[in-house]
Parts: sequence; C-alpha cells; structure tokens
Amino acid sequence: MPRVQFIPEDVSILVEQGESLLRAAILADVRVRASCGGDGTCGKCRVIIEQGAVDARPSSKLSDSQVAQGYVLACLAEIHDDVVVRIAPESRSSALATKPASRVANTVLSAEDCAARVADDASGPAPIGKAVITLQPPDLSNNSSDLTRVRQAMRRQRGIANVAVPLPALRELPDAAREGDWTVTALLTQPTESDAWIAGFQPGDTSSRQLAIAVDIGTTTVEVALVDLVTGAVLGQAAEYNRQTSRGEDVITRIILASTEQGLSELQSLAADTIAELVETLCARAGVATHDIMCYVAAGNTVMTHLFFGVTPRHIRAAPYIPAASEFPYAHARDLSLPGGPATQLLALPCPASWLGGDIVAGVLASGIPWRDELTLLIDIGTNGEIVLGNKDWLVACSCSAGPAFEGGGILHGMRAAAGAIEQVRIDPDTLEPTIMTIGGVKPLGICGSGLIDCVSELFLAGALARNGKFAEADSSASIRHGERGPEYVLVLAEESGTGADIVVTEPDVENLIRAKAAIFAGISVLLECTDVAFEEIAEVAVAGGFGHYLDLERITVLGMVPELDREKFVFIGNSSLLGARHVASSRRMLAMAKSVSEKMTYIELSVNAGFMESFVSASFLPHTDARLFPETERLLKRLREARRVLKR
Amino acid sequence: MPRVQFIPEDVSILVEQGESLLRAAILADVRVRASCGGDGTCGKCRVIIEQGAVDARPSSKLSDSQVAQGYVLACLAEIHDDVVVRIAPESRSSALATKPASRVANTVLSAEDCAARVADDASGPAPIGKAVITLQPPDLSNNSSDLTRVRQAMRRQRGIANVAVPLPALRELPDAAREGDWTVTALLTQPTESDAWIAGFQPGDTSSRQLAIAVDIGTTTVEVALVDLVTGAVLGQAAEYNRQTSRGEDVITRIILASTEQGLSELQSLAADTIAELVETLCARAGVATHDIMCYVAAGNTVMTHLFFGVTPRHIRAAPYIPAASEFPYAHARDLSLPGGPATQLLALPCPASWLGGDIVAGVLASGIPWRDELTLLIDIGTNGEIVLGNKDWLVACSCSAGPAFEGGGILHGMRAAAGAIEQVRIDPDTLEPTIMTIGGVKPLGICGSGLIDCVSELFLAGALARNGKFAEADSSASIRHGERGPEYVLVLAEESGTGADIVVTEPDVENLIRAKAAIFAGISVLLECTDVAFEEIAEVAVAGGFGHYLDLERITVLGMVPELDREKFVFIGNSSLLGARHVASSRRMLAMAKSVSEKMTYIELSVNAGFMESFVSASFLPHTDARLFPETERLLKRLREARRVLKR
Repeated sequence: MPRVQFIPEDVSILVEQGESLLRAAILADVRVRASCGGDGTCGKCRVIIEQGAVDARPSSKLSDSQVAQGYVLACLAEIHDDVVVRIAPESRSSALATKPASRVANTVLSAEDCAARVADDASGPAPIGKAVITLQPPDLSNNSSDLTRVRQAMRRQRGIANVAVPLPALRELPDAAREGDWTVTALLTQPTESDAWIAGFQPGDTSSRQLAIAVDIGTTTVEVALVDLVTGAVLGQAAEYNRQTSRGEDVITRIILASTEQGLSELQSLAADTIAELVETLCARAGVATHDIMCYVAAGNTVMTHLFFGVTPRHIRAAPYIPAASEFPYAHARDLSLPGGPATQLLALPCPASWLGGDIVAGVLASGIPWRDELTLLIDIGTNGEIVLGNKDWLVACSCSAGPAFEGGGILHGMRAAAGAIEQVRIDPDTLEPTIMTIGGVKPLGICGSGLIDCVSELFLAGALARNGKFAEADSSASIRHGERGPEYVLVLAEESGTGADIVVTEPDVENLIRAKAAIFAGISVLLECTDVAFEEIAEVAVAGGFGHYLDLERITVLGMVPELDREKFVFIGNSSLLGARHVASSRRMLAMAKSVSEKMTYIELSVNAGFMESFVSASFLPHTDARLFPETERLLKRLREARRVLKR
Repeated sequence: MPRVQFIPEDVSILVEQGESLLRAAILADVRVRASCGGDGTCGKCRVIIEQGAVDARPSSKLSDSQVAQGYVLACLAEIHDDVVVRIAPESRSSALATKPASRVANTVLSAEDCAARVADDASGPAPIGKAVITLQPPDLSNNSSDLTRVRQAMRRQRGIANVAVPLPALRELPDAAREGDWTVTALLTQPTESDAWIAGFQPGDTSSRQLAIAVDIGTTTVEVALVDLVTGAVLGQAAEYNRQTSRGEDVITRIILASTEQGLSELQSLAADTIAELVETLCARAGVATHDIMCYVAAGNTVMTHLFFGVTPRHIRAAPYIPAASEFPYAHARDLSLPGGPATQLLALPCPASWLGGDIVAGVLASGIPWRDELTLLIDIGTNGEIVLGNKDWLVACSCSAGPAFEGGGILHGMRAAAGAIEQVRIDPDTLEPTIMTIGGVKPLGICGSGLIDCVSELFLAGALARNGKFAEADSSASIRHGERGPEYVLVLAEESGTGADIVVTEPDVENLIRAKAAIFAGISVLLECTDVAFEEIAEVAVAGGFGHYLDLERITVLGMVPELDREKFVFIGNSSLLGARHVASSRRMLAMAKSVSEKMTYIELSVNAGFMESFVSASFLPHTDARLFPETERLLKRLREARRVLKR
C-alpha cells in the first residue's frame, strides 16, 4: 500500500492503490477544504506534490503556472506510489486538531487476518464438495449393481457408512462410471462424518473444479463472493442492491408483502435475481463455469433468510415473534432459480432467533470468538444493530433496532450508500466550514450513514451541537440557520449539490442518529449488565458492517456509540457476514461450529427488557449522560472549547 | 360363493358371483360343447336348470318350448345363487373323464389368506404415512421456531430423534400449524425407527385420509391396487396394458430403445401414463382424491423398475449384466408425472439381480415364505419364469426365460389375455371336438397362454399329440389337418371366429409351449439340485402370475411344467407381485423384510449353468423324458388310451 505523508503536519497514512488524495487527507485528519463532493468543480482542495507523483486529472481550476509548481486538486489525484504532499495555504481548513494525540488509524482486519484467528481444527473438508472414488469394475462373478459399488467405495475409501443417492444422481451414475472407466467424482453433501448424500456423479476425476458462492443477503445490499474451494482463493466479490428494496425498504414492509403467496414468491425471485446476476458476472469475469458451483452458503438476517428460501416470515412480525425455522434444510439451487449445475446445493447459516440471524452467526465465526478465551464484543452495525458478547464458552446476543439512520433512512437528505452520497465529512471547528467526500466523487445528492456520523460527531466537537443534540444557540453561524424544520446545518449549498437544492442536517436528523447510536450503546450496556461484565473486561471490540469502510473509530466513540476503551482493543472486520459464509462454504467443521454457535447463543429480547429502556435514555445524549464513561472524549471536548476561546480572543 | 351342481355327473363347484355357467362347467370339467367362445352364437352349450335359477340372456337358438322346459345357453347364464344343472344330451361332449379320480379345484389363496400367513411382527406403521402431532403453542418466553416445535413433538410424541424437513414441507409448516391451532398432520417417510423425514404438513388431524397405490409393473401388463392405509381395504384394482408395449413387446427391445436419453424418457413417460390413467380412474370410482395418495409402491422386474424411475437399464443387457441399482431411492411422484399431492412419495421393491426383480421379492413376501419353517417353492409364471425355493432361513432363486408363449407371443394365432382371447379349452378325447371360452365371452380372435396350455394338455391327453409334441399320425381326424406349416389342430373354424379365418394350433406353437414349460421345470430342477432338496421335501408349491386366473393345476402338471406332487401342496396366489407391493405399502417392517429378502436371495444364473441345459433337454417332452417323475400322469394316460381302445371297438 502506498504511503502519503502530509507536511508540515507530518502525518502519514497508508492507503489503497488508486485512492484519491482528498480521501487520504480526510482519513489522516489533515484538514483540507472541499465542498463539491470530489468531482473537481469547487476547486478548493489544492495541494502541492512535494515528492513523488500522483495520477492527476487536469482541472480548469488550476493555472498553468500552478500546475508547473506541482499543484493538483486532491480530489482528482489518484495515489499509486509513495508521495509527500503539502496542503495549499488557501485550501487549508482549521488548524484545530479535533483528534486526540494518540490518533491511530482504524485497525482493519483483512479476511486473511480473520481466518488466522480461527483454530486449525475448524478447517477440514467442505460440507459440500467432491469425492473421487474408484469403483470395482464388474465381472460375471461380481455382478452387483453400480450403486452397490459406489456404497462399497464410499465405505472403504472414504469411511462413510451411510450414503444416500437421490434419483437424479442415480440416473447419472451408470454412464459416468463407464465413461470414467470406473473412476467417478461424486458431488457430495456430507452433514456428518459417517453420513453423506450424493447429488450427482461426473465421469473421472473432476476434483480440481470446485466453486462455492458465499452470499451476504442484506436487507439493503447483497454481497457475493466467488470462492475456489480447492485453493481457497476468492476469485471475485461484488455487491448490488437487493432488488427487494423496490418492494419496500425495511424488513417489516417486506414481511407484510410476503404474507400472500404471490408476494412471497415475488420477493424470493427478486432476491434470487439479485444473486444470480452477481454470480453470473463474477463467474464470467473469473472465466469459470457456473456449472462447477458446488454450493451457495447464505447468511442473512432471519427475515431475509426466510425470503431467500421462499418460506413465509409473516409470523415473525407479531408477538410472540416466531420464525418458521432457525435451521434451514439443504436445498437445490435450481429450485430457487439460482445459477449452477444440476447438483448445486444451497445452505444457510442458522438463525438463532427471529431478530438474530445467520448474518450474526457468520459474524461470530468471522470474528474468531468461538476459538478465543478472551471476552470479545462484536458489534454489527446495520439497520439492526446486532451485538454479541462472549468467548469460546458462552455467547450472549441482542439485536437493537437502530432504525434506518445508519443507512440514510429517516434522514431529511439521507440516502443509501450509493454514488453521490456524502460518506465522509470534516467540519472546521472554527468556521464550521464543511469538507465533504462523496461516493464515486460526484456531485453530492444526499448523505449516507457514515457521512451523518461524521457530520454529527464533527458538529459536536466543534461545539455547534449540545449534548442533547440541539444546535447550540451561542454557536449560530453562517452555516447554521433556521429552516422550516427548525435549526439546520448547511452541508452543501444548492449551487454545489447534484440535486439543485441545499443539503442540510436538521435537528430531527441528529435525534434519529442519537437514537440509533443510543440503541447500540444501550444494547451493549444491557449485555454487559446481564452477564455482569465490566467494560474493562472486554479484551476486544470487533466492529462489523458492510458500510464500515469509512467508519471512523474516533467519531463513533465521540458520539458514544461504542464504549471508550483502549483504541488497540478495536478491530474493524468489514462484512463479517460474508466472511463467515465463506468459512462455512470451506469447512464442514465450520458449519458444525455455526450450528453450535446458534444453539449456544443466549438471546436477550430487548423489547421486553426493563434495563434496556433505562440504558437507552441514558445513552440518548452526546456522548452519554454519565460523563465518567467517556473521559477521553470529555478531555478532548474541554481542550477544543479552550482552543476556540483562544481563537475568539 | 354360489354352488353349481352338475347332474348326473354329481360334480359341484363354488364360483364367483356372476360367473357364467359355461365357465363353471369347464372349471368343473363337465364336458359341454361350445365353439363360439361364449357369445351365444353357436348355440351348442344348452343346459337345463333343474333347481334354482340363473340370470340368463335370451337366445334365438332356443325355442319357446325349450325355454319353458328350463333350457338356457350356458354361456349366456350368470350364476348368482346355488343352482342344479343338467347338460342337454345334444350338448354333452365326451363322457370320457380326462381328470384323475382325485380331482379337486385349484386351491386359490385370496389376498386375505396370503396376509394371514405373514407373521404378526411384520405389521406395523406404514413406511410412508401420517403422524398427527401437537405442537407446543409459542409465547414470549418460548419463542423457538415452528420447526423446532415439530422436532420436539416428533421426539416426545413419536420417539423419532432425527427428523429432516425438506424445503417444500417447511414452506407449508407455519400456516398449517396456525390453521390447525398447533395440531398438524405430518406426511411422514420413516425409513428407520429413529429417523424420518417429513414431506409435507396439513393443518389439524387429517389422519383418516391415507391412500396408497400398489403397482405391479409387468412387461406386458400393469396392475394397480388402490389401498386405504387406515382400514387396509382395497378400494379398487385395475389392470391395463403397459403402454411401453407399443415400443416393443420384450424387455430387450425396450432396453435398446432406452439406450438414448430420449428413448429412456419416452419409456418412463409411457409407464407413468399407464399408471396415471389407472390411478385416476380408480380414485374417481372410489370417490377419493389423488391428493391423499401418500405413496406408490412399485414392484417390477429389474428392467421395468429401472424404466419406471427413468434410470438407464442398458448395462443389464450385455455381460456382465450390471443394473444401475438394486435398491432405488425414495422419489417424488411429481418428478415422475404421477398423480398425487405435493408430498406423494414413490418407492420400489428392491431388485436382487439384473434378471431377478422386485416383482419376485414381492412374490416371496406375498407367499409368506420368509415366515415359514417349511420349504416352499414359488413359481411366478410370466414372460420370464421366476422360481424361488426356500424358507425363513434361506432363499435360492433363478429366472428362466420361458419366452413369450405364456402370454401368447410367438404363437401363430397367439394373443395377449385380452377380450376375444381363447383362455380355456376342453377337447373331447374321442372326437377331438373343442369347447372354448373366450375372455369377455365374445367371438374368438386368438389364443392366449392359458388357452394354449389347456389346448396342448388336452390334445396330449386325447392322444393327438405325441410325447415329443408332434401330432400323432394315427390320430389324424377332421380336426387335425395338414396346413402350410405342417400338421395343425383347428380350434375355431373361420365362420365362428372373430377374425374371419380359422384359428389353429400348429406344431411350432406346441414346440414353443414345450420349450417354455421345460424352462420352468428345468429351473425348478436346477434349484433343487443346487440345494440338494428332493421334490418330496417341498412342503408347498405356490403358483403365481397375473394370468393364473383360469390356469389349471392338472393341466400344467400333465404338461410337465410343475413336478407331480400331492395336489394339496399346490396353492395359487394370483398376482403375488401386486400383493407384495400392497404389503410393503402398509408396513415398514414389510419393507425391511423386502430388503432382507433381496439381500438374502442367492441368485443362480442359469445361462452359465451346465445342469440347466441338461435338465431343459430332459424336460422338453410331454410330460418328461423320465416317466418316473410323473407316475400319476402316466397312469391317467394309460387309462385314457384303454378307454379310447374300448370306444373304438
């Protein structure tokens, strides 16, 4: 990864190949002005390349002489090599550091890092894979059936005593056996050590071709990974909106639609279509045949998992909130209209409870909790915040309805994390001037979850928001005005927005976010209280969630969403649901562990928990009503208040 | 059953309600003339009702005064009550008795008789049936999934530890559970005591509606029984030609056609269509819904069973004669286009070897052999003669290719046992005048297996056929003439036949029948030799076969098809394949016994057995080259020879 050094701040950061210089500055908390979202039109983010080079698109905002001096617009400059950069004086935003001195980048664990935390005994044969067996050729003195030969070979060569061969596989056997000269590859589903069923036969040894599809079925986004089961390599990964969103954005709307047979079938098809397109694209790109997909492993919340299988979720909606199933049967890909061969199987991670799905079970696997002695807190941030506390011996979980704020829902100018969404915000604590970065670096259309978190956190640090989430009257400035809905912060002016209208953050928006973060913090508190664990006893906090790419530990801490622990204790593990599904696709023992995790997990139903409401109310402040829980944030707030007082003199 | 007494012969016989008087006379071996097959046109079978009454259709062949005297045509008279009958003098055929003095009717075992021979421990729950379970209603303190409740109920209420619920059933569960107020009926497949899978759910208690279809898939004829699994009653039974015969009459032709995927699929569809039509007719007649069919249990020879499931039989044809499977997996009726509900399952009796099918395993069950200490010989007569010898401890079997003669194949005027087929023949040992009865009592179109057996046996007893099957020259008469193919016996003259041409039996026809019967006798001999069992040690001979309705023990003995044992040792059990399939549909233990029978059965491959050819050659005479094996037949022949000599003087 190339390193960017900002001078004179002397802050360095490692970034991905091709990352924009503006994004690098924001990530490094080096203040640079930018109001157009990153499409080069505001021309504010001027930087000077001091050493090395960047791949910069030309801009009419820069004069030839500036270009000659090494000026580029940070938003139009892609980083490919180490580079030393100076922010142009006119582009420099506040000199006030809103960061604590101990500022470190998020600790992001890669899939490989995560996999390394899983004990060796969790590896092993895939639950669905291939077994090459050599059948005894028949003669007149040994004229037992082809199928009997398969059973003998499975027992002798694989130690599998009970083999079921359904009709479609049996139909393939006679020709496959002779074409392969009595060597056949069995497409094997092996739920236990001694039992297996064979979904198909191929002539000869085809064991080098074994693919799996891991799927994270999110309410909003579906993400798919194409895995080579032989090498373990991920051949591709892609995400797309869940097409079900066209029929309702939230889970409840979809449950209602799924209450009729037609609606259920429609939602099942929409999910399948979403996945099918992603899989076909990934396979085409990787140059592999969908025919060689051995299995799909799906992880989703309980409602999404029901819809994926076409099983009605409607009894989840009303008390006593009963799912049809917590473990789903193996199914055929063809029965759900998913790409694959005739033997392609489908399995899903178990869903421990109506509001606790296979996604969180997958997350527990991905985080490595079931192999750790130390206490780990897993927080999966999405429409529902799912929280798990435990170690290899016990697991307690809850799901708190954070509401759609993290995904831009219920926010005046909120939107999903799509092109044009403001996903990062920095605000000059002195002038309240915003610096924004949009997804895709295009004109801003609205604000998504991480952008809102940034914005509220920055406004709070800048003193513009009071602890109760109201705009501080003393701090009214050009950026804060009284709109139709009361006070609001202007993030983007109409002339720079892609919608032709101002993009603002209102007090109700802030309230929504505070409610969401309070739900998560309260969930954490209740879990700790129920288990009599103190914050300090947590050895690690694993933060998961698809949208966590630009989520920033400092800012979620300042909001009071997560407890203020040693920064070293926090790790970001990205889409842990997808990662867990990948684990299960690769190892039968992982599947067994998923079942064990699902059964072991004690679910705390927050809606009937008295302590939760109390904790939620206490957490509905910035960062919290109990300041002692956030000492470092309090110190930072005090330091910034004093710095502003100095500036104002 | 009404009793018919013939005077002055003083022979009585019990017959089915509605049986014709002509048939009763033939069965009782009371000689009456009849040449039109039973449609009333020859007017020869005049009888006088002396006591009681019959239901007689009027005939122009009788004068009013005759009618007033009690004359009826025997072929047009249906028996409903006890009756005493005298054959009119002009209708009386020979006075020569061709029967031994000890003449008794065939001992025909009904399905109930057969079932009584099966030990009690073979009854029990059906392999596929319904289980009514009461689920624990959920509340907030017990919010486990619907499926979990099913598993609990199955364990606690049924003692079934492992329950698999495939996706289609899971989809039905949530609504069924609530509609039935937490009582549901599970459509259950239970292969073992502790394991089950549930193919569907119905709300409430639907256990009173449980149907099964037993199917005998014959190469030529498919016979189906509709069984009420709750009461055990047979609601209907019907047979139809296997539509596959349109694509080839014998098994080998069908194997060749099934060698292509298209041919295989076509043959599978033809068998399914045959069965589907029978099932739909039976259900409509019985006023039950095909939806309530729990399962099909099919018994057929190995090739027919393969074709039924759409599994290629082509490797059965050439050495080393390997079937794809001997046990077939449970399948879905819908996958084979058979009528039923979404959960209707399909199972087949195991086929022990390529030329030894599930039909004979079913026959073994039906005959009761697996529960008997005594040695039983089972002979199933069809295109292939299948022979089993054994008791509850051991079973040895062989299959001898009798050829199609028993089903009218390879015979000049042969036909299948359909309307118009001459199925019974009596021949006056003095004049050689034939008395014939056709299926359906219509004008004769040809001769079927039992008719040919009767005809050849009668000709032999009448001295018209020599031991080698050639027409005896000394006996040439009006009925035996020299045709294009050598000497032939005229059974029906053109003016009385439905084809407008003479119906004859030729020497090659006789040769074919002798080859067929010799194959069976040789098969029996080889089995006995292999097992070192003497004829006398056999406690019972069970004769099975769909066409055995009017098969006569004396006549098959005279031919030398079966050994000459005490008549009391012989029982006729009809379509034992269908009966065995009915047993399996009703009891899981019967299915287990079928598997045990299939595994236990030692198969003697006759095509590579030196002794078989030798036995076959020895048996290719009437009744056998070794006269000592048939002493009673020899005595009868001698008596008849002398009687004829007396008549000729």
